[in-house]
Amino acid sequence: MTRILYSLCGADESRPFSPHCWKVVLALRHKGLDFIEKPTPFTEIPALENGFSKTVPILRDGNELIRDSFDIALYLEETYPNRPTLFGGEGGKALSRFVERFSQTIIHPAVTNIAVADIHDMLGETDRIYFRKSREAFLGRTLEEMRAGRDEAIAAFAAKLEPVRQTLKYQEFIGGDGPLFADYILFGALQWMRVTTGVKVFADDDPVGQWFERCLDLHDGVGRHVTAA
Amino acid sequence: MTRILYSLCGADESRPFSPHCWKVVLALRHKGLDFIEKPTPFTEIPALENGFSKTVPILRDGNELIRDSFDIALYLEETYPNRPTLFGGEGGKALSRFVERFSQTIIHPAVTNIAVADIHDMLGETDRIYFRKSREAFLGRTLEEMRAGRDEAIAAFAAKLEPVRQTLKYQEFIGGDGPLFADYILFGALQWMRVTTGVKVFADDDPVGQWFERCLDLHDGVGRHVTAA
Repeated sequence: MTRILYSLCGADESRPFSPHCWKVVLALRHKGLDFIEKPTPFTEIPALENGFSKTVPILRDGNELIRDSFDIALYLEETYPNRPTLFGGEGGKALSRFVERFSQTIIHPAVTNIAVADIHDMLGETDRIYFRKSREAFLGRTLEEMRAGRDEAIAAFAAKLEPVRQTLKYQEFIGGDGPLFADYILFGALQWMRVTTGVKVFADDDPVGQWFERCLDLHDGVGRHVTAA
Repeated sequence: MTRILYSLCGADESRPFSPHCWKVVLALRHKGLDFIEKPTPFTEIPALENGFSKTVPILRDGNELIRDSFDIALYLEETYPNRPTLFGGEGGKALSRFVERFSQTIIHPAVTNIAVADIHDMLGETDRIYFRKSREAFLGRTLEEMRAGRDEAIAAFAAKLEPVRQTLKYQEFIGGDGPLFADYILFGALQWMRVTTGVKVFADDDPVGQWFERCLDLHDGVGRHVTAA
């Protein structure tokens, strides 16, 4: 059976950077499932699998096609129930959605403020045109204006993770003693920033930075294997 | 067997307002457990149960004494496993801690900005002295300065719940189809504000306000039964 994860890359396909695709990479490895990753530039995504989705991740699992990182995680949990759980039960499933929405509304904009101009610079020519136009329209600022605010955004970043920092006083992972999909959700956001910018946002003794390092080591260091910018 | 919840009140003991105690009230009702609530002024808490805890909630469950709302919820889940679950499994337990830390670091300070002067005014004479001194030291501002910033704090409040708002696009409760302890955690914060201030912070069509109304109706309307300020 062929299992393919379509993910996102810039000009260098060895450095996939999408936060949502990283969530799925860790989820697949968590379940112990083999897969082939096919990093794809932004503007080639709409043609994948006969136009199945405008965005990645897309997972082909034999005859099944699934899009959206959370839906893929739910699919994996349902389809492979005897492998390690991604949610730890129905409560964990529901509350993972809250973690996703926290990451999406608070952490993703903070990463964007730091990384958006760097992401642009990683892309191939065709993607750059698409990316600049769509992101500048969304942000209401030019990439150059975003870059000018980068240092300020870096300084403000770590504080946004305060709920995570405090959670880690009680447990090694957001999911408890070991990682769950909730960890991969937040890992995805930080890995996106790491691969695209390489900036240091956490003090050495920050529990959030230490947790991120633990996540980089998970599943044979699949996250660490892709180098930081 | 005697089950007693020691909670917090001001001069009027019919209007307990502590967010942490409200979490436990809902958790006990969720488990279908009878209890006597004993609302207690701030300065009388240290004498409860031979000085067992400086803060409420304190739960006496027969011969057991437990403090701290999260620890009480864990105790109830372990002690009464055959009654409705508060966590929905181990994943839900771990991620509820994240919801608690979100509430504590983002929502509680926002409620404090709105409510702290009103809370003072609800207290008896002895408590007022303790409360003003401890809160002004903690906040670095006088209660009068806090009151002056109240309208601004009200206007800024609803946006802080954005991760909750987005979660409610997917499910009726933070815990999924029905409420879990995670709902009671955030309910506690909003009920604290409702009982002490009565201010309207949500637009009528705000899904967060609608969820809070659903929570007020839970368990025979135990939350709604205490009137807003």
